[in-house]
Amino acid sequence: MSNDKQVKEITSRDEDFGRWYTDVCRKADLVDYSNVKGSMIIRPYGYAIWENIQKVLDKMFKDTGLEFIQMPMFIPESLLNVEKEHVEGFAPEVAWVTHGGSEKLEERMCVRPTSEVLFCEHYSKIIKSYRDLPKLYNQWCTIVRWEKETRPFLRSREILWQEGHTMHATAEEAKEETLRMFKIYEDFQRNYLALPVIVGKKTEKEKFAGAEETYSLEAMMYNGVALQNGTSHYFENHFAKAFNITFLNKENKLETPYQTSWGVSTRMIGSIIMTHGDDRGLVLPPKIAPTQVIIIPIGNSDDIINLSNDIKEKLNNRNISNKIDNSDKTPGFRFAEAEVKGYPIRIEIGKRDLENKVVTLVRRDTLEKVQVNMDDVVEKVSELLEQIQKDMYNRALDRRNSMIYEAKDYKEMTEIANNKPGFIKVNWCGNVECENKIKEDLGLKSRCIIEDEEVNGPCVCCGEKAATRIYFGKQY
Amino acid sequence: MSNDKQVKEITSRDEDFGRWYTDVCRKADLVDYSNVKGSMIIRPYGYAIWENIQKVLDKMFKDTGLEFIQMPMFIPESLLNVEKEHVEGFAPEVAWVTHGGSEKLEERMCVRPTSEVLFCEHYSKIIKSYRDLPKLYNQWCTIVRWEKETRPFLRSREILWQEGHTMHATAEEAKEETLRMFKIYEDFQRNYLALPVIVGKKTEKEKFAGAEETYSLEAMMYNGVALQNGTSHYFENHFAKAFNITFLNKENKLETPYQTSWGVSTRMIGSIIMTHGDDRGLVLPPKIAPTQVIIIPIGNSDDIINLSNDIKEKLNNRNISNKIDNSDKTPGFRFAEAEVKGYPIRIEIGKRDLENKVVTLVRRDTLEKVQVNMDDVVEKVSELLEQIQKDMYNRALDRRNSMIYEAKDYKEMTEIANNKPGFIKVNWCGNVECENKIKEDLGLKSRCIIEDEEVNGPCVCCGEKAATRIYFGKQY
Repeated sequence: MSNDKQVKEITSRDEDFGRWYTDVCRKADLVDYSNVKGSMIIRPYGYAIWENIQKVLDKMFKDTGLEFIQMPMFIPESLLNVEKEHVEGFAPEVAWVTHGGSEKLEERMCVRPTSEVLFCEHYSKIIKSYRDLPKLYNQWCTIVRWEKETRPFLRSREILWQEGHTMHATAEEAKEETLRMFKIYEDFQRNYLALPVIVGKKTEKEKFAGAEETYSLEAMMYNGVALQNGTSHYFENHFAKAFNITFLNKENKLETPYQTSWGVSTRMIGSIIMTHGDDRGLVLPPKIAPTQVIIIPIGNSDDIINLSNDIKEKLNNRNISNKIDNSDKTPGFRFAEAEVKGYPIRIEIGKRDLENKVVTLVRRDTLEKVQVNMDDVVEKVSELLEQIQKDMYNRALDRRNSMIYEAKDYKEMTEIANNKPGFIKVNWCGNVECENKIKEDLGLKSRCIIEDEEVNGPCVCCGEKAATRIYFGKQY
Repeated sequence: MSNDKQVKEITSRDEDFGRWYTDVCRKADLVDYSNVKGSMIIRPYGYAIWENIQKVLDKMFKDTGLEFIQMPMFIPESLLNVEKEHVEGFAPEVAWVTHGGSEKLEERMCVRPTSEVLFCEHYSKIIKSYRDLPKLYNQWCTIVRWEKETRPFLRSREILWQEGHTMHATAEEAKEETLRMFKIYEDFQRNYLALPVIVGKKTEKEKFAGAEETYSLEAMMYNGVALQNGTSHYFENHFAKAFNITFLNKENKLETPYQTSWGVSTRMIGSIIMTHGDDRGLVLPPKIAPTQVIIIPIGNSDDIINLSNDIKEKLNNRNISNKIDNSDKTPGFRFAEAEVKGYPIRIEIGKRDLENKVVTLVRRDTLEKVQVNMDDVVEKVSELLEQIQKDMYNRALDRRNSMIYEAKDYKEMTEIANNKPGFIKVNWCGNVECENKIKEDLGLKSRCIIEDEEVNGPCVCCGEKAATRIYFGKQY
């Protein structure tokens, strides 16, 4: 058994979810705190997860024809001010650079909180004709938002992310692009991160500062709280007008192009932890785990070491990432460490196993053990990784579904909000007054509009005619 | 012929090298200027070169056992101040963040100009025992140095780079690591970028602020001016002492570990341009070119288009990156554009060629044309790419060698400095007074010490006994 100190130091998630989360982040060596208030250090194991995320998304993006670019990280104040709603949304939370060396700057600059205005300024120079459209750009970079309360991956002053910014000749094309990238996010989060995200449009109140429409991926954490896991925005031509971006169409007439932007960040790592993790630590979906298999030899005999190396080589040949933990710590300690780190499969190789020509595979997600014949080990590992990936998704889906409630009226909604963590599905009139009241009374924010369900009653809040179905929930 | 407007707009490099350089950067779509003073936009074609550089170096680093990490981008002033020489070197050129939103910060922070102090602070927490050593970390990130005069890739306020930071139990191990990474840089720059870099140790005056020893890669540009293309530093334990980093050795005694750091940046792209480029534009070494082959069909007949697609597919199967330029521009314009962009090989497919079952290959580096049989095209392209890579290196090497002069005395050194661009090899006493005098009189800085040549005369400057052979040269 792996009942070790390392695991015992993790707070139970049912006891104190917040502490459980930070315990897992630290004990699994994902992050460390630094003397830089509000900024975290992403340690090698955490960064390797981000590298895997980048690798997959990078390819998905390029396959759609996107090009990659690098914009400045600073935005002069006057440039940030060009689009009004945008500056109102972001100015309160930017970091201002006022001095270069010992000299005061003529105009202060903020560190980018997002780069719409930088892209627009560039687009205004390089877009002249319909031949220059569409422009499909993405950048991987770090952005800064001066948050007061911070938490590893969830809310940090520095955020690693990608931001895509595209320009199109027509509104239709821009809308298509908004949804194309949104769909890529959804596929990625479902199939790689095993997150059963709920997807839909944000309300007027909750959409991005300056956008016409915002689509959002809403993940539900173990404790029922929502984490907004990525957004895709359709801007119509709000920014393009503010920045005087125009192009000559085929008829040689000036038109204004249509724009999108979309982004996901290291916050997704927070979702993985809080959806799949348990009291023993991290549980990583195989498709995104930096180390899919940990091999733990029990004992130092040549036979055991040779077999470990042999299995390692076979796994390498199948492109299954793996490591041998041959340290001088006790087996129990090494098992516990493997559990804290969330390696999807652990292979235990002991003396008796060797005699019986078997090894033991342990699934991290269920902690189930299975003995397999030595010769079949790579085949079994490969099957099991696929099974774990599927099972993790389905378990998360079942759990999510079990925490979605329906409320017909305000009394019912209040009752659920006060007693049951999760999302609440309601009919809504579409007015921001009701949205605000629900936020104030119950601490719930609208998550996203449900497109594929028919209204089946009056507005849960005011009782007037409902316009749409919508999710409400607490959020990080 | 490709005598087109696009090429004519590039200033001749012999006429005005500075303008030639910025013309090439712009015309080849590598960068654009922005409203953010001192920061450049790296456009898709320029960024694709950087992605290729990252891909190769990333693997070389990981193959030596390095782990990747992400540190904060801000450094509180008190943290920057911990190591004295270091802060003196960097404080004059950092960007200071003084406000978060509308609030003044209690302590101002700079955007990292380099991250030694951040790594040291982290190391002081995670290094406790000899078992924790070595620590071998690298990060890819953007750094900021508040330069007054900026130039694309060469000197910019924002620099994309990697910085490696390692900690070791012994001085020997740290020195080995310093040189191991230095060697990787040298291999990479010679074999991938086709740059015949001169490598060696910096003088006391020119070494990195806080380092014990700095090793530098010195590339010589077409105009004879040096570009420092990367450095690797051995810190002894200067920082470790300043940061109180200690570990328990095997005998359970406290010791101070030894440290290295090393970095290369987008500046290498500047080297590629200024070493290999010509009056027609960029010339890219095949191993780092985002598009190794451009296929230009002349005419729109189905035969020609089918053959172009057929060649494309065959090149894809051989992992030779390529594009078809089938735009409605004239062949001459498309040839010129291919030259400006520096694609290593251009394949021209015309009607007459098709009848003769041949296609024309044009080398970008020499502009030589060769007709090859249709069936052999992929084989020939593959051979030619290798040949171009070699030839580019050798031409750069010959040119570099032809611009290295030897000076026995100060008169001769002055004569060369005033008349011949390039590097000057001299004997030197080792005193900073002579180094300063040469800088003041002749505008030359020491490049690096020549380890493998014996002193063969007195110091070129003071006439006293020489201690070493050394290169001097103008620098960017």
